Amino acid sequence: MLTALQRARFTVVLVGARNPQNIGAAARAMQDFGFSDLRVVNEYAAPFEAAQLEAKSAVGAAGVMRNAQIFTSLGQAVANCTLVIGTTAIGARELQQTVMPIQQVAEQIHTTLHNPTHRVALLFGSEKTGLTNEQLSHCSALATIPLFAPLREDGTPARHLSMNLGQSVAVCLYELTRDGLEGAREMPTQHGMPATQEDRERLTQMLLHAMQHTGYTRRFPANARETVVRRLAQQLGTTHLEATTWMAFLKQIVKEEAEGREDSL
Amino acid sequence: MLTALQRARFTVVLVGARNPQNIGAAARAMQDFGFSDLRVVNEYAAPFEAAQLEAKSAVGAAGVMRNAQIFTSLGQAVANCTLVIGTTAIGARELQQTVMPIQQVAEQIHTTLHNPTHRVALLFGSEKTGLTNEQLSHCSALATIPLFAPLREDGTPARHLSMNLGQSVAVCLYELTRDGLEGAREMPTQHGMPATQEDRERLTQMLLHAMQHTGYTRRFPANARETVVRRLAQQLGTTHLEATTWMAFLKQIVKEEAEGREDSL
Repeated sequence: MLTALQRARFTVVLVGARNPQNIGAAARAMQDFGFSDLRVVNEYAAPFEAAQLEAKSAVGAAGVMRNAQIFTSLGQAVANCTLVIGTTAIGARELQQTVMPIQQVAEQIHTTLHNPTHRVALLFGSEKTGLTNEQLSHCSALATIPLFAPLREDGTPARHLSMNLGQSVAVCLYELTRDGLEGAREMPTQHGMPATQEDRERLTQMLLHAMQHTGYTRRFPANARETVVRRLAQQLGTTHLEATTWMAFLKQIVKEEAEGREDSL
Repeated sequence: MLTALQRARFTVVLVGARNPQNIGAAARAMQDFGFSDLRVVNEYAAPFEAAQLEAKSAVGAAGVMRNAQIFTSLGQAVANCTLVIGTTAIGARELQQTVMPIQQVAEQIHTTLHNPTHRVALLFGSEKTGLTNEQLSHCSALATIPLFAPLREDGTPARHLSMNLGQSVAVCLYELTRDGLEGAREMPTQHGMPATQEDRERLTQMLLHAMQHTGYTRRFPANARETVVRRLAQQLGTTHLEATTWMAFLKQIVKEEAEGREDSL
């Protein structure tokens, strides 16, 4: 679980992103997973300014975009960070550095953020080229999202590995908060009271009763045995309310059948 | 690790997606993580056709988009699936079903795909509304991506929880193919053919029919609404054999009731 102070020491850096929509999508993913420090490195401010304009109307990204900072040099953007991690789709080029799966890197980031003197930056390159060698040289570690990489018979990759920028950011931040958020927020497990085993045993008996009354038992005796019916009844009613719905229906079947018989006397 | 055959039995269903770019983004995420069966449910074919046109030039999504199928009804789209899981951003509405974090659901999907008679569908709703209650009633389980959910001082959520469609698909498929799931999985102990979604839809209709015939619908109209009954029917019949047992029982109820009425004439 990352605390608010630890989250505040984590920065997403978009380097050379060209499409304003992708900048907005990254900002939205940050907001979704509880991060707020976005830095954009671009020679020209145009994509960033367009993203800020769009964010005013865009869902969920406004807060992050408002506080985002723009830099013209990557060095300046990560100047106050203690751990700089680049993301890459491996296979694209010969890398000089070790590439680790994002799962493993997420652990390293967690450990680092636990120390209040640290500040971590996660870098994403441009949509077209990813991080250049020069940009990678600012990184002390490289992370990749393991993608499906089929090989041709001659051993060469059958497809170019690259991922949509907004999706990459979302997956990395998901991984970073994956273990923590689960506990942090209580999942609404179920609406209303769950069905009890007592409910289920009542259902078993009512179902047996209804099968007998409707003539089902006579026609399909093997399927109307108590153990078989009990197994069926285990599936009825996840909630107590659902179980009682079944009970009322089964009662109605028996009642209706009895009335039908009475009428025919 | 999912094998190619297991991947082939996993389907992504986009229900009511309006933005062609989002359909393309979902297709691209599927290609990135090694899945190929995309089904799109839409009243109008326009967004799907636009996505197919765009995919010709789009990076990485072409293969998936070429094989994608379009349906006008969700029931048809998932008819041959045995496990249907809906995704939801909880908090949006009061849910009747249990919502599990995607981590947990991914394990269930893995276990299910290990059995070659199973076929799993993961549903994503429209960008605006998510899955409707009617659409959720087709699901036997609900999954959510745990998002950052700060609360105001009065305990109400400080932001609307929702996620970009393409990003949601990417995160779910990432979780599904994430390393580490390989270890602690067991073969399912289920015997016989599993019930399909087509079986469950037949059960829904037969149950509605039986409720009407026995007078249950008249007495408890709120519990006999189609979405409520479909949710009940999702619980019936884990195996195909159990599903047919239920069908025979429901048939017998209607038959018996009709005969009773005839006798009383």
